[in-house]
Amino acid sequence: MINVAILGFGTVGSGVAEVIEKNNAHISEKAATQINLKYILDVKEVPGTPFDGKFIHDFSIIESDPELNVVVETIGGAKVAYEYTKRALAAGKSVVTSNKELVATHGCELLRLAREKGVNYLFEASVGGGIPILHPINSCLAGNQISEIVGILNGTTNYILTRMIREGATFEAALSEAQANGYAERNPAADVEGPDACRKICILSSLAFGRHIYPEQVPTEGITRITLEDVSCAAKAGCKVKLLGRAIARADGKICAYVAPHLVPVENPLSSVEGVFNAITVVGDAIGDVMFYGQGAGKLPTASAVVADVIDAAKNWNQGTIMSWDEGGADTVYSTDELSSRWYVRAVGTVAPSGAQKLSAPEAENVVFLTEDAMTRPALDALLQQAGVTPAFLMRVLD
Amino acid sequence: MINVAILGFGTVGSGVAEVIEKNNAHISEKAATQINLKYILDVKEVPGTPFDGKFIHDFSIIESDPELNVVVETIGGAKVAYEYTKRALAAGKSVVTSNKELVATHGCELLRLAREKGVNYLFEASVGGGIPILHPINSCLAGNQISEIVGILNGTTNYILTRMIREGATFEAALSEAQANGYAERNPAADVEGPDACRKICILSSLAFGRHIYPEQVPTEGITRITLEDVSCAAKAGCKVKLLGRAIARADGKICAYVAPHLVPVENPLSSVEGVFNAITVVGDAIGDVMFYGQGAGKLPTASAVVADVIDAAKNWNQGTIMSWDEGGADTVYSTDELSSRWYVRAVGTVAPSGAQKLSAPEAENVVFLTEDAMTRPALDALLQQAGVTPAFLMRVLD
Repeated sequence: MINVAILGFGTVGSGVAEVIEKNNAHISEKAATQINLKYILDVKEVPGTPFDGKFIHDFSIIESDPELNVVVETIGGAKVAYEYTKRALAAGKSVVTSNKELVATHGCELLRLAREKGVNYLFEASVGGGIPILHPINSCLAGNQISEIVGILNGTTNYILTRMIREGATFEAALSEAQANGYAERNPAADVEGPDACRKICILSSLAFGRHIYPEQVPTEGITRITLEDVSCAAKAGCKVKLLGRAIARADGKICAYVAPHLVPVENPLSSVEGVFNAITVVGDAIGDVMFYGQGAGKLPTASAVVADVIDAAKNWNQGTIMSWDEGGADTVYSTDELSSRWYVRAVGTVAPSGAQKLSAPEAENVVFLTEDAMTRPALDALLQQAGVTPAFLMRVLD
Repeated sequence: MINVAILGFGTVGSGVAEVIEKNNAHISEKAATQINLKYILDVKEVPGTPFDGKFIHDFSIIESDPELNVVVETIGGAKVAYEYTKRALAAGKSVVTSNKELVATHGCELLRLAREKGVNYLFEASVGGGIPILHPINSCLAGNQISEIVGILNGTTNYILTRMIREGATFEAALSEAQANGYAERNPAADVEGPDACRKICILSSLAFGRHIYPEQVPTEGITRITLEDVSCAAKAGCKVKLLGRAIARADGKICAYVAPHLVPVENPLSSVEGVFNAITVVGDAIGDVMFYGQGAGKLPTASAVVADVIDAAKNWNQGTIMSWDEGGADTVYSTDELSSRWYVRAVGTVAPSGAQKLSAPEAENVVFLTEDAMTRPALDALLQQAGVTPAFLMRVLD
């Protein structure tokens, strides 16, 4: 039997409890051992649930219970969650989480602690909600050298962009609608400014390339500057505007990771990912492109991924550490300035450089165009300066 | 160290050898042990490869080598491959294969033999080529009760349908083109008549639902009767014609599995899967819809999936069986006659039943329409008889 404790009885924590109870026979069969939900730790009393006898308020009960095997951390943030995760791992418990902030910030340290104790720190739910992505990268794609990961990693911004593209809603109107539907927080900065996608590409690239990439190493731009003019000019170029997290490996093993809105050509399957859905494309030397698609958030999809990790932790109990990566550093990354792409440029004025594909109407206040050739950002800046164009907004094309 | 033998040095076998050699350091690190390619069994001499010293012609060398751990079977078919797989498992070797015919026909027996010997029989590459799908179903989605699997499982037919949809090529012209490009065999029946997709949906549903579904239990229809009129009428209804393998679980646990062309609405992400690509959607009670997309065939994508299984077999050496399902039988399945859907109907004549959405022009030789309501096939037959319509061709809509 494997005993499980859940830390935090919020949306994800209560979903995990529900899935463990509802599908218990099936889950225990898959784990080849009985999975027993023993404790739920929460600061508040939560009466009237089917889990009445399991609530506790003191973490040391979990820490000191020698029969407790797996701790599910759904507290969020990088303070209390960080402390409890360290203490749980140090006490020889495996820890499963959906906490992307904690993994992106302290993943390497926590994975090392897990390895030292011969337990697991697993976080499939931290990226892509219920979509299986970290486990397949670690296992099913293990025969490949991965060269690139690119994905729509944030459902809220994808919902907002979808409403702008399909309904012609402004950014502000689409954001209000997302908030009214519960897809966006009252303070939407973590979504619309890009930090949520940034944490996820940190986790994906750390796992795929083997060294920790930290959020401060990932230039991050959100979607707040995108206008309806951008969306309609993108359509004229056969593209959709999508916020992408992207990480590319150079031949010497260094990684360039960044988050920014892109023009995605409609032939690319990422362009047809709409609403709150997420999708992640992984490029391997043997497999080519493979894409994983599904609900990137939500109580039960996220709980589904957490429970899969609980099963994995149970199956691998006393069998060592499944997943790990090494410490990163300044020498892990290279600058986005080295990346070539075609560019979307919106500028005040009417003159486009020669050879560019003009997307704006002749009489429009702004000139909008695509560069014909792929080039680096410094090369673009030189071209624009030469043509006397001062850009107001730039996006790369995902070619 | 884990020693590996490859049976058959054809397209997939040589790809596996290449990937194991090229990415050996990375693969051995992932397996946490050295992966060593020890033998390649082939009837013919294959001089001039980097694997010169490894070729053998006698299977009993592999069978009787106590240091040989994993056998990669890429012979194909269900005769020699069946015999060698049984003998390898009986000798306590794990077996990895891309052989869908063998798994769909004898999977349950071979999995049982593997379980008895405490080894593994793994076949990720048998479905979806390089796309990770069986492993995620077995592991990452293990917290879910799966209710449905539906997918584009055959790249050749999807290439033909894509050419018909995008270029207006006839079925015959598109097939010739697929043959010229090496995407279709000289005898294309296994692709265009559906048996290849049938074997794959057998494997997917056996794993997802836990009991063996055999090919003869899966009604199978190919794409040979689809005309350009069907493709253009489908477009008028906002749909694309796709050959789907589909398996649906009823509340009592019985499964309905079948292969047939469908109308897929453009809002469904399966509709945008083009050319030789495959995609598989899995529906779980917690996760909702999740889709896996990638190259469904080809030397290196398939080799990538085989090598991932070799790594899994190595990691789980002496640790028991990862994956298994139970024997099936007549009580495992229920009839497609119970499945309701909207229907696409092409018939000679001009009269459509009242309430149907007519898709053909008034002057056309055939009447083509969609039923307004979802209904079973017997209910459709009754409706058509009542309206005096004799159908020439029928497809379900994937709603």
